[in-house]
Amino acid sequence: MIEIKEQILADNRKVADRLRSRLAASRTFLLNLMSSPGSGKTSLLLRTVEALADRYRIAVVEADLDSTVDADRIASAGVPAVQVRTGGFCHVEAVMVERALECLDPAELDLIVIENVGNLICPAQSDTGAHVNVAMTSVPEGDDKPLKYPLIFASCDLVILNKIDYLSLEPFDAEEFARRVKQLNPQAPVCRLSCRTAEGLACWLEWLEAHLRSAFR
Amino acid sequence: MIEIKEQILADNRKVADRLRSRLAASRTFLLNLMSSPGSGKTSLLLRTVEALADRYRIAVVEADLDSTVDADRIASAGVPAVQVRTGGFCHVEAVMVERALECLDPAELDLIVIENVGNLICPAQSDTGAHVNVAMTSVPEGDDKPLKYPLIFASCDLVILNKIDYLSLEPFDAEEFARRVKQLNPQAPVCRLSCRTAEGLACWLEWLEAHLRSAFR
Repeated sequence: MIEIKEQILADNRKVADRLRSRLAASRTFLLNLMSSPGSGKTSLLLRTVEALADRYRIAVVEADLDSTVDADRIASAGVPAVQVRTGGFCHVEAVMVERALECLDPAELDLIVIENVGNLICPAQSDTGAHVNVAMTSVPEGDDKPLKYPLIFASCDLVILNKIDYLSLEPFDAEEFARRVKQLNPQAPVCRLSCRTAEGLACWLEWLEAHLRSAFR
Repeated sequence: MIEIKEQILADNRKVADRLRSRLAASRTFLLNLMSSPGSGKTSLLLRTVEALADRYRIAVVEADLDSTVDADRIASAGVPAVQVRTGGFCHVEAVMVERALECLDPAELDLIVIENVGNLICPAQSDTGAHVNVAMTSVPEGDDKPLKYPLIFASCDLVILNKIDYLSLEPFDAEEFARRVKQLNPQAPVCRLSCRTAEGLACWLEWLEAHLRSAFR
């Protein structure tokens, strides 16, 4: 079982590397957004489209076990959205992204976001072909998530803490949360924001724009 | 790969059935509690221990990728807690529960709760050996979770909606949520509660006590 799994992972890494190179050649930035169910991935994407769609050509690859709820929300914001229905599969692999991109024209896009399946575990173990990986969590989930799900926080390029409008209602220690992330991943910035109130969104948007400008220099 | 996976599932089912029978023989009720990260599994267990520990002998099997945060919280409530560190593995299988029970004396217990890894997907696909399965979600996660994670809601015996003290703050339609659950699973009751305020806890405690009384008749 382990050998087979390692073979599958190696095959996936090959597809992921190919995808990354191909998109770099067309200067299309691929970002993988991961979180628990209900942390606010789709809400963040809607805020991002609202802020950047006049300057960047954006598309979204929506992954879900079932339903097209999120793809519908994104499409209604006027951005191309491709739905990947994983049918019970718990995370996105590079081959699924390659298939999804057949429905888009990456050469005509500046940014493609993969909204991964809501899951803090399995997505962190698989390369989607993205140029950067973003891990999101939210205040109601509690400040102990880095202790319990270390891989996703250790292996991402940015951590987003959403729903900070709940900080006054929850026994959530934001400093302690940031310390726990830093211990796992000294490089990754932590952006605290609220997709509902828009507070703190600049941190995320500036990080993203800096990467969009410098990615393929 | 699929054949191997099916073999693993079949092996796991055999272990699960053996475990279920063995615990039934000693009249020890095994309950599997599943949810996303941060929905409030540990908080529910602390409330449950508080309400029932004077009448039932309770123990908890805590599963986490890493850390002993939850087992420590449970143990400090005076209830035996066995920590299963899955080391990156995304759900609990029956063989892990069997190993964990080596640290307890099931014949001396009325109720053992498995606090599964925080994940709405993979735990629903694997039999832990439990007599009943409980799926929990919480208001901040959104009312669309049954649409996006149908298997866990379709295959459980009870659905718990936690953090109802947030209902006034969130665009969460509790009636629509209940309808979505019912469509997937007409048998499973839905208990709405708040582990923080204790509102609605009676629904869960009465369901649990009814099962404890009638399980091995």
